Amino acid sequence: AEKAKWPKETIELWERLSKKEANDVETIEKSIVHHVTTTLARAAYNMDNFSAYQAVALSTRDRLISRWNETQGQLSKVDPKRVYYLSLEFLLGRSMDNALLNMGLKDKYGEGIKRLGFNMEDVIESEVDAALGNGGLGRLAACYMDSLATLDYPAWGYGLRYNYGIFQQRIVDGYQTEYPDYWLNFDNPWELPRLDISIQIAFGGHVQTTQDEYGVTRHTWIPGSSVQAIATENCNNIRLWRSKPTKAFDLTSFNEGNYEKSVEDATNAEKITSVLYPNDNTMAGKELRLKQQYFWTAASLHDIVRRFKKSMREWSDFPDQVAIQLNDTHPTLAIVELQRLLVDEELLSWDDAWEIVTKTFAFTNHTVLPEAMEKWSVPMFEYLLPRHLQIIFDINLFFLQKVEKKFPNDRGLLNRMSIIEEAQPQQIRMAHLAVVGSHKVNGVAALHSNLIKTTIFKDFVDYYGEDKFVNKTNGITPRRWLHQANPQLSALITEALGNDKWLKNLSLLKGLNAKAEDAAFRKKWMTIKRANKVRLAQLIKDRCDIDVSPDALFDIQVKRIHEYKRQFMNILAVIHRYRTIKSMTAAQKASVQPRVVIFGGKAAPGYYIAKLVIKLINSVAAVVNQDPAVGDLLKVVFVPDYNVSVAEIIVPASDISQHISTAGTEASGTSNMKFVLNGGLIIGTLDGANIEILEEIGEDNIFIFGCMAHEVEDLRHAQRYRGVPMDPALQGVISAIERGTFEDPKIFQPLISTLTVGKDFYLISADFASYITANQQVDAAYKNQEEWSKKSIRCTANMGKFSSDRSVKEYADEIWNIKPYPVEDEGHL
Amino acid sequence: AEKAKWPKETIELWERLSKKEANDVETIEKSIVHHVTTTLARAAYNMDNFSAYQAVALSTRDRLISRWNETQGQLSKVDPKRVYYLSLEFLLGRSMDNALLNMGLKDKYGEGIKRLGFNMEDVIESEVDAALGNGGLGRLAACYMDSLATLDYPAWGYGLRYNYGIFQQRIVDGYQTEYPDYWLNFDNPWELPRLDISIQIAFGGHVQTTQDEYGVTRHTWIPGSSVQAIATENCNNIRLWRSKPTKAFDLTSFNEGNYEKSVEDATNAEKITSVLYPNDNTMAGKELRLKQQYFWTAASLHDIVRRFKKSMREWSDFPDQVAIQLNDTHPTLAIVELQRLLVDEELLSWDDAWEIVTKTFAFTNHTVLPEAMEKWSVPMFEYLLPRHLQIIFDINLFFLQKVEKKFPNDRGLLNRMSIIEEAQPQQIRMAHLAVVGSHKVNGVAALHSNLIKTTIFKDFVDYYGEDKFVNKTNGITPRRWLHQANPQLSALITEALGNDKWLKNLSLLKGLNAKAEDAAFRKKWMTIKRANKVRLAQLIKDRCDIDVSPDALFDIQVKRIHEYKRQFMNILAVIHRYRTIKSMTAAQKASVQPRVVIFGGKAAPGYYIAKLVIKLINSVAAVVNQDPAVGDLLKVVFVPDYNVSVAEIIVPASDISQHISTAGTEASGTSNMKFVLNGGLIIGTLDGANIEILEEIGEDNIFIFGCMAHEVEDLRHAQRYRGVPMDPALQGVISAIERGTFEDPKIFQPLISTLTVGKDFYLISADFASYITANQQVDAAYKNQEEWSKKSIRCTANMGKFSSDRSVKEYADEIWNIKPYPVEDEGHL
Repeated sequence: AEKAKWPKETIELWERLSKKEANDVETIEKSIVHHVTTTLARAAYNMDNFSAYQAVALSTRDRLISRWNETQGQLSKVDPKRVYYLSLEFLLGRSMDNALLNMGLKDKYGEGIKRLGFNMEDVIESEVDAALGNGGLGRLAACYMDSLATLDYPAWGYGLRYNYGIFQQRIVDGYQTEYPDYWLNFDNPWELPRLDISIQIAFGGHVQTTQDEYGVTRHTWIPGSSVQAIATENCNNIRLWRSKPTKAFDLTSFNEGNYEKSVEDATNAEKITSVLYPNDNTMAGKELRLKQQYFWTAASLHDIVRRFKKSMREWSDFPDQVAIQLNDTHPTLAIVELQRLLVDEELLSWDDAWEIVTKTFAFTNHTVLPEAMEKWSVPMFEYLLPRHLQIIFDINLFFLQKVEKKFPNDRGLLNRMSIIEEAQPQQIRMAHLAVVGSHKVNGVAALHSNLIKTTIFKDFVDYYGEDKFVNKTNGITPRRWLHQANPQLSALITEALGNDKWLKNLSLLKGLNAKAEDAAFRKKWMTIKRANKVRLAQLIKDRCDIDVSPDALFDIQVKRIHEYKRQFMNILAVIHRYRTIKSMTAAQKASVQPRVVIFGGKAAPGYYIAKLVIKLINSVAAVVNQDPAVGDLLKVVFVPDYNVSVAEIIVPASDISQHISTAGTEASGTSNMKFVLNGGLIIGTLDGANIEILEEIGEDNIFIFGCMAHEVEDLRHAQRYRGVPMDPALQGVISAIERGTFEDPKIFQPLISTLTVGKDFYLISADFASYITANQQVDAAYKNQEEWSKKSIRCTANMGKFSSDRSVKEYADEIWNIKPYPVEDEGHL
Repeated sequence: AEKAKWPKETIELWERLSKKEANDVETIEKSIVHHVTTTLARAAYNMDNFSAYQAVALSTRDRLISRWNETQGQLSKVDPKRVYYLSLEFLLGRSMDNALLNMGLKDKYGEGIKRLGFNMEDVIESEVDAALGNGGLGRLAACYMDSLATLDYPAWGYGLRYNYGIFQQRIVDGYQTEYPDYWLNFDNPWELPRLDISIQIAFGGHVQTTQDEYGVTRHTWIPGSSVQAIATENCNNIRLWRSKPTKAFDLTSFNEGNYEKSVEDATNAEKITSVLYPNDNTMAGKELRLKQQYFWTAASLHDIVRRFKKSMREWSDFPDQVAIQLNDTHPTLAIVELQRLLVDEELLSWDDAWEIVTKTFAFTNHTVLPEAMEKWSVPMFEYLLPRHLQIIFDINLFFLQKVEKKFPNDRGLLNRMSIIEEAQPQQIRMAHLAVVGSHKVNGVAALHSNLIKTTIFKDFVDYYGEDKFVNKTNGITPRRWLHQANPQLSALITEALGNDKWLKNLSLLKGLNAKAEDAAFRKKWMTIKRANKVRLAQLIKDRCDIDVSPDALFDIQVKRIHEYKRQFMNILAVIHRYRTIKSMTAAQKASVQPRVVIFGGKAAPGYYIAKLVIKLINSVAAVVNQDPAVGDLLKVVFVPDYNVSVAEIIVPASDISQHISTAGTEASGTSNMKFVLNGGLIIGTLDGANIEILEEIGEDNIFIFGCMAHEVEDLRHAQRYRGVPMDPALQGVISAIERGTFEDPKIFQPLISTLTVGKDFYLISADFASYITANQQVDAAYKNQEEWSKKSIRCTANMGKFSSDRSVKEYADEIWNIKPYPVEDEGHL
């Protein structure tokens, strides 16, 4: 704005002095040294790897920002429709390696830092993960932001900048212990200050009702307190809000005259974004969580509306300029907040406002698990957000009136579809609100998208029709999950395909199918796999002090620990394998395929049963790994503190990985995609994206077992009323545990009880026999290494569909109606 | 350390790339624009004054750091004795203007920023004060750090980096209301990260007693918890500690298995450095305050010891390498901590350790007010610092044994001198501990240094002898308080003296005495004074919406609001003046000297009487300023939120300022020095540094009134037992208040009662008549502007003694035994 008033020579001076830095090694070195001596205030003789990381990161960041400024400048002029991706979690992991690769400057920075006395790998290893997410949902958001940027879509991610990310997991005496993850202990170089963006977020108070000059009733929210939202920006167009004390004059505190209390209040404001709730697929129900959600959605909407208003368009143009995607129900309050802004502050009529709102929002469902369904108690909600509660009641009233009109006299239907659940106290069903306020609702894999239409949203499909409910199968970014995590394989693929275009068009991997028949290529392929296994074996040695042979079959299950994901079934089968080996003669043992079973993942701190699974895995490992009768035939490893950086080591090293959720429980899974993309085979149930992976890579390259989703309800019903028919092999395993083969059996009794008293809700017994068989098939197949290598290559070759680029394109075309706007690109990719 | 291993070409590369930036305008502009586009991630079209400030500050900082690195590098080689100044408060104010002036680059930066479209004055005004202090004590520390740096002494300041500095004061309905000062809302560019310096600070737990292999009893402190101290550095060699959650494995939290609690605990760690206690000359007694003191002293000592150990000397060399100055009793725990480190951790004998300790420390006393004497309850202390309590008891035992030997059979004496006060519960007298553990104790003005020898430390003088108790009269830095705050006067002085050497040798101001006789010079002098008054009048208009005439006499009292400073007496005299004017005929009024009485200052939030004084000032102002019978003859102004930046506007604009504490209560005062240095006359009592100012500038240039310190005790005694003889003029004033001339008189009853029921402890009635007379003398003298201007010039001319350079030199020579180490100097000053 000020620029327009400046004289020509001032503008020219700015432009001349803003020109970008050159890409030669000397310029790069100079920028690194400059940051060492100024930003870090260090002398060269006083440097360590971490300081070197900081300096390289700051230098990299400077370049990213220059590019980013340019992109934003160009986009401002075009002012296209933008998509805003609202996600309470962004599981970004490390940033530096990725940034350097994306700019095509990794080699030059590597050369520069080497000449300055450091090694690039050590420098990269010094970066702390940004772990602002629990698992798949947060990592999906990170992959989508990568694809949106790569494909030049005008997009912003909005989330929270927690001081404490997902807890650090340490294993003490076999048990998970949780430790706060204070990732901001040192300044985060990837965070850009956006001091110009600071928004007041209100809470509490009451609603004032008045008549305006035309006799129209107006509602004004008179808040009781407020906090400030400050934007910090990740270089990937992700804006994360942090809460700060408000600077406004707070009369309440003043009149009380209590200085210590007002400092305390101010300090409390920062608590809102203090900690990520460490629950995956469960609903916490805490007041602070609701505060987080409103704080975040209100700040984000304020920012979106501010950007929209710059171009002075009509409000009716809003949905042509703005698409907002709700990643799960966490940001559903954004629907209510936009309606409030339009009606109370912009003075639109309710109906005009609601039309804008429903054309703007779309909603991604991530689960059908009942314990994950967000509900908020009406009294608590009213205390925090009195005006929003009124609006929700009005939305619900007008909605149910229409339902009643379409399906008269069905009180049960109204009761089921209502946004308000008539419990004591009343509850707000956030998923219903999200469906009612959105124009599209999608699941994240074909099976899951069908399931939501027949279960949780069945009534809504009847009312709205099929078209509102669509599928967008998840994807992953090949830039991080192959190019960065598996650089040797990436190089081999580029060599085989003649160029690296596959990185932005993953279906080009199809070209590798022919290479599966090339023995020399297969050898190179498997050599790389083995190198990746050696790297993982070293990590296991460092973190667990267990020696594992890279020649064994690496069998991996890494993901959140949850009953539905059935790590319990996996460790039970491991015990079965152990018992089988123990019962063998030496001759029989000679033909056993050696296997290393590797687990990793965090359990929610309050999830007692899941934490017992971790304890059982560690207890089994302690016995098996020391048993001379078993030796290298079986090793069990629990890798502590699984996170994105650890995943980048584990994923490329798998021979087989396990994706064995009870059919119908895992919405998609994305780690299955990561493993297969890296030439790892999978063993899995017909659940989530496994089904589509099977379709793409063919049944010869995947090991499927277990019951199917449509059979689950009948099986559960039978078990509930007729008891659990315990699989004989499983019974043997349980008896072994109960005999105390692995520590005091009393420890594990509550876990065993889930199979008996708990009626084996997740169908471990029903699937056990087929699971054992599938594992035997894996062993047999692995013995034929030539055939296995073909399978491995075909896995990678046929994973084109699962690029997040494809997912994002589908969202863009079919839900958001946005187009890419490529800007002058100087980078490598 | 790593450097030694590097090959020659690596070292050469670092050295080549580390070379400093040039000082031309283009290079400066480039650095500003670079920070705008990278560090701030802004585009030129999206800039405001605050962003411009940030960019200029960052660019300035880069240069400061380069110089700083170089200085530190040179000092490391010499490894001279260093002084460490421990102060719980550093009242730095703004940094940028000062930094640019010190580097001699203000003009070039001004030119650069102008070409880039901004104005330097606006940019400077965008900086927020660093207000990490209450008043004089904190500002003194800042002035001393300036002098130490300017004089090239090897020195470090150690303090705390509070998130909330001294509260913001706003006036609501005439009352002071306090608002948290969240000065860190935006990144602070003057703060350098020192990520290499992070120290674990322990609390609580218990003491383990064991016998070592030689049968010696050893005590080991087994702490209950710990927090991390992170260093942030101000460019002036001040290291401020901030508390952070510790990264160490805290088994207690783990075993409880309560993740939410462990995050809460971690967050609480940051509370230690959250807020500055807003009390001036009072003792808070809060546990958190004790935690602050230990956190700070332990971190600082750890750092001092680490630096000492680098050079591998004997422990007996410690006092030859290290001098530690205790600014008030706040850091007295450092004495105990060093004794603990030496005895428990370094395994020195108690006596060897104690000799090192007492040779190292020196203690500055700042007050004789009983309410300011620090005492800590023994049970609370034991809970937080069990081992330190043992050591204090041992120090006390050995000390009292020696006293008993010198003065046998005087139990009263032992009781009076004991470090432990035998109250319920027992109290630790920190001032006694500080005296016992230091080799020198000083007061801060001649009168005050004598007073402490005859009152609070009388017994200690008898025991140790006179030599341990010395005087170091306070000083102020002329760089900030004249050169920066009063640039026109500074330029005129430089012109008159022929050069600016006076800035580093303030006694050269004597040369101005001759100029007092030069009418043309006097005219220039008074023209500048008037311009400064116009600037203040504008600030008063902006902040208070009161119009004041720069032709009136500006009468200023700005300082903390405290009974002993007697702002109450000032406003009572203002009421007397108002009543006198009201009773005049028009003819009489014509000869009245118009006066603007300006107040400013904060009262401690819990200091009810002081807050009532503010209310009375504002109530009087409301009546007087609106009274047409008075017009411009009298205006009353209370400037809200007095701080360093406001002082920089107010000080150069005074004709007369008030320093009117009851004799014997103000240790020194330093604002008296600032006003006089800027050619403002003062009216004051024979208290603190007023006496020495009188000696320097002569009795013709200062207005002295009131009783003397040696008379105070007798007067109080008489009033206590024979009632307060109320001055008739004062009685008239009180009656006017009680009649409701200024709002509801009930409001002010508790304040009036201090004169009657409270027996007028601060002797307002006794001094009132002479105070009124002195004010009449001021009026009369001001009417003769030619004579007044001579007085004004002579004031400035004779203030050489009060440079903090002189104070610091005295400390260095007579207490610390350190020498300056000039480093290659490229700056201007």
